[in-house]
Amino acid sequence: MCELSDRQQIHDVVLRYCRGIDRLDLDLVRSAYHPDGVDHHTGFSGPVDAYVAWVEPLLRRFDGTQHIIGNHYVELFGDGDHAVAETYGTAVHWGSPADDARRNFTSGFRYVDHMTRRDGRWAIVERFAVREWTRSDAGTRIAPEADGPRPRRDGSDPLHTLTARVRRTAKS
Amino acid sequence: MCELSDRQQIHDVVLRYCRGIDRLDLDLVRSAYHPDGVDHHTGFSGPVDAYVAWVEPLLRRFDGTQHIIGNHYVELFGDGDHAVAETYGTAVHWGSPADDARRNFTSGFRYVDHMTRRDGRWAIVERFAVREWTRSDAGTRIAPEADGPRPRRDGSDPLHTLTARVRRTAKS
Amino acid sequence: MCELSDRQQIHDVVLRYCRGIDRLDLDLVRSAYHPDGVDHHTGFSGPVDAYVAWVEPLLRRFDGTQHIIGNHYVELFGDGDHAVAETYGTAVHWGSPADDARRNFTSGFRYVDHMTRRDGRWAIVERFAVREWTRSDAGTRIAPEADGPRPRRDGSDPLHTLTARVRRTAKS
Repeated sequence: MCELSDRQQIHDVVLRYCRGIDRLDLDLVRSAYHPDGVDHHTGFSGPVDAYVAWVEPLLRRFDGTQHIIGNHYVELFGDGDHAVAETYGTAVHWGSPADDARRNFTSGFRYVDHMTRRDGRWAIVERFAVREWTRSDAGTRIAPEADGPRPRRDGSDPLHTLTARVRRTAKS
Repeated sequence: MCELSDRQQIHDVVLRYCRGIDRLDLDLVRSAYHPDGVDHHTGFSGPVDAYVAWVEPLLRRFDGTQHIIGNHYVELFGDGDHAVAETYGTAVHWGSPADDARRNFTSGFRYVDHMTRRDGRWAIVERFAVREWTRSDAGTRIAPEADGPRPRRDGSDPLHTLTARVRRTAKS
Repeated sequence: MCELSDRQQIHDVVLRYCRGIDRLDLDLVRSAYHPDGVDHHTGFSGPVDAYVAWVEPLLRRFDGTQHIIGNHYVELFGDGDHAVAETYGTAVHWGSPADDARRNFTSGFRYVDHMTRRDGRWAIVERFAVREWTRSDAGTRIAPEADGPRPRRDGSDPLHTLTARVRRTAKS
């Protein structure tokens, strides 16, 4: 039971990271790391605060990003306060104009994370964001064929508005 | 334990929805919603019965679809009978001819679901199918290089035939 | 509790299979099957040892592969020692030259697995690797824009070096 619950919490760290990146919620991104956490990316290597400062303007270049994760495999070490978590994913980036290869591409990655539990909280102490492959999507984007729910990065995404509504409803 | 089990059931609702869509099992699709459930899609907004009536002919245009989900993050509310579940995914659509952009495309989505538990059953009361991006796959499809297991949408998929066999075997 | 734990173990079998394929760790691939396991692939059908012998040279043709899995749905049968697990995924293959369609493509698949538990160990007795679609990525690959963590298939992947380090650290 305890081990399953740890695995759930470790998985949630990665999920929150992705949500933070895709919704441009940098505080949520930062919360995935311990304060002394370190990140190794393609083009960056250093402490988490510097990582967030580096990644934010990159993210703002795009109209949107989606970091879709799949395989998530965790191995626990020591007394169960250390973990290595490998997470597979694809990161879709889109932007304008739609034929700009630097703003329209998909990459495959693996997050190889050393996580620790401190004061009951699991977070990243060191991340290796392994770049697997990158593919240009320039010129392949299609506009939506009709109206419907669309993503936002300013705190008004359908996720945020629905969550606020359910929080009110469930209380009453 | 209870919370983990709720999360499992909530995840299963989304998995059954995807399986229903991809195997053209519309009853399975419907079972993901409460009878008064509502769906908001690109090009549709209304009650679940109308949604199923709308989506079925769209699905039949394609030779196949695959709704691959990843990130699934659940927040529970109230006494734990309400949940907001966000699920990331990509939907691959393929059809004939292979260079028809309307029949060969991939889209990224997030299902933002308000689910509730009624009489012990978790299901969707309101879904926002957020369209993130759409990419044409026209002209990129390759035929299989050899024989092997292939998908079916008529109840004879390898999943169905294997399940029937294991059900018989495991009993005896 | 027991059922959740079984589901975790069944999921882990599929995760280890993917890791084995992508890191070229054929022993890890083999460990996902019982010794008498059978695999049905596009272009192959037979026992696990023959499958591994068949797949290894195919994998070596590529510079890398990534088998990203998502939807994973398990149904238990009998006394809970039999399971049918359906797992959705995409397999990205990349190689040189980057415009060679046979070395640069992505396929969608479903693993439809009959798994059993023997002596407490879940593993595959029969797998149907259902090919859903295949798409050429020829000519779309982009080189990394800067240095950073890269995948390896020789036992020195960031996953392996980090795991060895954490194993030492967590003990001391």
